[in-house]
Amino acid sequence: MTTLAKTPKPPYYCVIFTSRLSNDTEGYAAMGTRMEALATTQAGFLGIESAREELGITVSYWQSLEAIKAWKQNAEHIEAQQMGKARWYSEFAIRISKVERDYFM
Amino acid sequence: MTTLAKTPKPPYYCVIFTSRLSNDTEGYAAMGTRMEALATTQAGFLGIESAREELGITVSYWQSLEAIKAWKQNAEHIEAQQMGKARWYSEFAIRISKVERDYFM
Repeated sequence: MTTLAKTPKPPYYCVIFTSRLSNDTEGYAAMGTRMEALATTQAGFLGIESAREELGITVSYWQSLEAIKAWKQNAEHIEAQQMGKARWYSEFAIRISKVERDYFM
Repeated sequence: MTTLAKTPKPPYYCVIFTSRLSNDTEGYAAMGTRMEALATTQAGFLGIESAREELGITVSYWQSLEAIKAWKQNAEHIEAQQMGKARWYSEFAIRISKVERDYFM
């Protein structure tokens, strides 16, 4: 998405997903688009922000840790995670974080 | 930086800075490079990851909220913040977050 996420007053949670792609990216872009659309339909979803240069960074925002866990366990998302590990990513990091304060301009 | 941040075992803190640029970006890239280099010299700094497409996302990692506060109040960083608000950004969000769990591949 191309706008900043409009999140509610903290506290809420986020998943910071940072990655580097492998040389095998066939199907990656389409899956990314699909997963972003699917995420927006999940209970507790608050927003998502993405950018990629050499590193890819996607931050998704959630009402609770339970919402994050349910998204992690979504069947279609599990397939995407498996494809990502097996083919698309050379490395990644996932950080589950609690947003305590925020400021906007 | 072009590698994923090598952070210690949680908990630790991060600043998620997301932004959109204005049409006036003169001096922005050089300042970004300078601020990233300066951040790495601060007490409690753990790592930084950045990417920009339509959105820019920079996540910096810190040992403590005190380290984040000290960085926010760094004199040279304050100048950069003022330039950013006055000229370079059309909008931004800053989220101070506590990383509770992480996973790496």
